[in-house]
Amino acid sequence: MTPKTTPNAADRRRCPIPQPALGRLPWYLAAVSALDDAGVEYISSTQLSRRVNVEATQIAKDLSYLGIRGKTRIGYEVAALNRSLVEFLGFRRSHKAVIAGVGSLGSALLADSGLHRYGLDIVAALDINPSLIGTVMAAVGIHHIDHAKHLVQSLHAEIGVLAVPADCAQEVADRLVDAGVKAIWNFTPCRIAARDGVVVQDTSIYAHLAVMYHNLDAVR
Amino acid sequence: MTPKTTPNAADRRRCPIPQPALGRLPWYLAAVSALDDAGVEYISSTQLSRRVNVEATQIAKDLSYLGIRGKTRIGYEVAALNRSLVEFLGFRRSHKAVIAGVGSLGSALLADSGLHRYGLDIVAALDINPSLIGTVMAAVGIHHIDHAKHLVQSLHAEIGVLAVPADCAQEVADRLVDAGVKAIWNFTPCRIAARDGVVVQDTSIYAHLAVMYHNLDAVR
Repeated sequence: MTPKTTPNAADRRRCPIPQPALGRLPWYLAAVSALDDAGVEYISSTQLSRRVNVEATQIAKDLSYLGIRGKTRIGYEVAALNRSLVEFLGFRRSHKAVIAGVGSLGSALLADSGLHRYGLDIVAALDINPSLIGTVMAAVGIHHIDHAKHLVQSLHAEIGVLAVPADCAQEVADRLVDAGVKAIWNFTPCRIAARDGVVVQDTSIYAHLAVMYHNLDAVR
Repeated sequence: MTPKTTPNAADRRRCPIPQPALGRLPWYLAAVSALDDAGVEYISSTQLSRRVNVEATQIAKDLSYLGIRGKTRIGYEVAALNRSLVEFLGFRRSHKAVIAGVGSLGSALLADSGLHRYGLDIVAALDINPSLIGTVMAAVGIHHIDHAKHLVQSLHAEIGVLAVPADCAQEVADRLVDAGVKAIWNFTPCRIAARDGVVVQDTSIYAHLAVMYHNLDAVR
């Protein structure tokens, strides 16, 4: 695959946004998108700060990475801020993905239309269960994982969603990377090692559950 | 509800584990649980370190909060470490929850049997859609959100899973807290404000998606 460089990506490389700031942008988007739907035109940094529970100075700093500055006494223009955030976060572009593991969590993810709305386009599912292979779930065909390389390359998938049992998480991640994906979205509770240049995004929901249980014990 | 204090919870309050250490424990559990299944009896801290990609000294420090120490030249006893982690993380106890929002993501969560395996017992679902109310999904009854208080209290639910659209996230979270839940597991991309003593656990999967897209642009 030829590396593609959009002007935006180049800009971002020049002045990379720190991960904590990046992680806060979706909060701002959720707030301004609701305001935009409600027909609100401007929001002051103080009002936005109250809605997202982040200091106004921090918000200003985070948004400066997108080249956005509020206007004195007016604040931010809601519709423009909404558009910039959606664009910056990549929700409007389609990102092709394969999902490995069509068990309980994997089929739940396939059924979640929200992922598609946020730009994730699952183009194929992979499993080893003979009773699943050859079937279609949520309009996505299920194939044997041995075909990963062919599928990833012919369908131009760049993300591998990892929803397999913990005991084969690393092995399947290796196969996906080997097949050519550039990012692993890891739903397993395992730590996934991948070579430089491959993004690993952990969304280990069962791990979050443990953290919540523990914090719940502490407030009881 | 009378506050319950188990000896374990009391121990934890005496020496609270820092959140980053807590967040790493599920990685250790995933690793030792696989080793336990494979019949491995002991693992050295160096081997464990390699599997989870965390410094051995950090692992030792994290596990010291559970009162666990490895033995010189032998390392950790796998089965015992597995049991301690499962117990500490609360996966073996049942935690009753209601889920608010039975849209695409909410019904996917209801269908995921993994949550149940990790101790989350969803006892009721809440929505406002008249065509859903009174129906049953994945053996869980769907009720009008107006009945939240009655359900939370009669079913002794302490967790509210928030899977509603972003524009009503805070409002529904307020209703769940008002109904008596002690923790909000937030799947929306919104920042949820809750009074002291209420745990908010964010698992905003669409926000993680944005972070992944962005990091993917940077490696392209």
